Amino acid sequence: MSAAPRYLALSGGVGGAKLASGLAQVLPTGALIVAVNTGDDFRHLGLTICPDLDTVLYTLAGLANREQGWGREGESWQVLDELGRLGGDTWFRLGDRDLALHLLRSQLLGQGLTLSQAITEMANRLSIHTEVAPLSDDPVRTLVETDQGLLEFQDYFVRRHCAPAVKALHFDGAAQAVLAPAIRRALDDPALAGVILCPSNPYLSIAPMLAVPELRQRLRQLQVPVIAVSPIVGGEAIKGPTAKIMRELGLQPSAVAISELYGDFLDLTVVDIQDAALATGDHFAVAPIVMKTIEDRVDLARRCLALVGHKH
Amino acid sequence: MSAAPRYLALSGGVGGAKLASGLAQVLPTGALIVAVNTGDDFRHLGLTICPDLDTVLYTLAGLANREQGWGREGESWQVLDELGRLGGDTWFRLGDRDLALHLLRSQLLGQGLTLSQAITEMANRLSIHTEVAPLSDDPVRTLVETDQGLLEFQDYFVRRHCAPAVKALHFDGAAQAVLAPAIRRALDDPALAGVILCPSNPYLSIAPMLAVPELRQRLRQLQVPVIAVSPIVGGEAIKGPTAKIMRELGLQPSAVAISELYGDFLDLTVVDIQDAALATGDHFAVAPIVMKTIEDRVDLARRCLALVGHKH
Repeated sequence: MSAAPRYLALSGGVGGAKLASGLAQVLPTGALIVAVNTGDDFRHLGLTICPDLDTVLYTLAGLANREQGWGREGESWQVLDELGRLGGDTWFRLGDRDLALHLLRSQLLGQGLTLSQAITEMANRLSIHTEVAPLSDDPVRTLVETDQGLLEFQDYFVRRHCAPAVKALHFDGAAQAVLAPAIRRALDDPALAGVILCPSNPYLSIAPMLAVPELRQRLRQLQVPVIAVSPIVGGEAIKGPTAKIMRELGLQPSAVAISELYGDFLDLTVVDIQDAALATGDHFAVAPIVMKTIEDRVDLARRCLALVGHKH
Repeated sequence: MSAAPRYLALSGGVGGAKLASGLAQVLPTGALIVAVNTGDDFRHLGLTICPDLDTVLYTLAGLANREQGWGREGESWQVLDELGRLGGDTWFRLGDRDLALHLLRSQLLGQGLTLSQAITEMANRLSIHTEVAPLSDDPVRTLVETDQGLLEFQDYFVRRHCAPAVKALHFDGAAQAVLAPAIRRALDDPALAGVILCPSNPYLSIAPMLAVPELRQRLRQLQVPVIAVSPIVGGEAIKGPTAKIMRELGLQPSAVAISELYGDFLDLTVVDIQDAALATGDHFAVAPIVMKTIEDRVDLARRCLALVGHKH
């Protein structure tokens, strides 16, 4: 009797979190670990903020604001309104309930927990039964080289609304970062049945993860299927600046270009039915990948698992 | 022509802040500097919190909650309620508007401002025209030696509601601390006309300030009157644990005992009309010192200034 199959999902924020929540609903407890980008983590107003991890936690807990793609549903803004009246920094929109999570993380980190341990504890408190792990307990920080200079990630992404043209991306600390223990355990697990790259921004969300040498190398060596769901549909990103960044970097935004980014380790790219014409050869599969409803997430999760099984 | 007289007030939280606000109303702009205890400052949930400074700022800005003696009027509790649901630390009651001030301070300190500079900036943003200075830009931390062990100040004061019996007080860092530049300037100012110790807890609020050797020494050497308003009326503290602590330390709670604490530099102790019988000799003055209304604060401020003038 072999152990029940386990799956590793790599995720950034919104799109990735949606597929992760679909996988969490489809798979039995204990069968999924979601490894989340930490390149956009930052210190702000004395707090450690982990936007992608928080989006994944809120999405898995069913608390995410589905309209805006970040933060919580039913949020209030008492603190930020007052901070604004006091002339403080309000460009990063911290809702009251969201702030409570940041304060909880500060408390846990202040007690000496690693980021991994803090996230596990936060997931427990949010009644999440899926294992969620940060990329690393070491800091990895995305820096965006633009026509307006070298910018910290949130400065580029939130304060400047991704307006500056991207010339290059740097992932400070990635070369020295050690993978989070839970990710390493998942990659070592003989029950690992496949890896799924969720439809997150390949430059801003997946690249910081792959910049940790150990992760990319382990993915190359894996004997189980590694598949990616394209974040590009019909030449445009479903959400966010992926297509804009690709054009700024001189690339044609398409699911094919995405598959090339991961060429050294990827077995299969899942493209949308709109892009069926691009799916030439057995390195592509076609599925409806735009997730508008909870059912869409579950459906795409089932298809991904079937594709992993198929390649198995 | 001599410069307009200037006054230095030493204050802790509630009672001290009330007299400071009375002085601020009576004196012309630029004539008052309020030096505030920082011994109860602490790091909590990633934020730097300065309870006495904040109470003084809120009181001077007319924003203080007059019922509870800490925090702001018209406060909301969205963040703390959620933090409680998440199982986080809620024993220190951080309201939403109050949190905004702590986040602003974190932002300012994160920009490299000293605590003095941050407090000046915060006072400006709160439209306060009185100079407010922390005791020091170096950390001074009150530790309470009790029958339940050595406790951090807020652990003793807020979490344990001052229940443990006090054996001794320690002011970590005080011996090495340098007075805030504004306090030093005030003490050097030839226009300094007097120093007023506000009716704050002598052990928890005034003692940490006097534990900075430079301050006590300068007060001893001053050629201008130094007066104290007793925080004890009729053998009990107007508010807070002063009398309880005095009994635990084997002292009789009275305005006379207070005056003895400051004997090496004090010219005059102002006691309440209830304690007129204690006011023997010219080192005592009698005044109604219980401040219930704004008018009471202004009246006591006027009396203090007159007494300083009288001794001048």
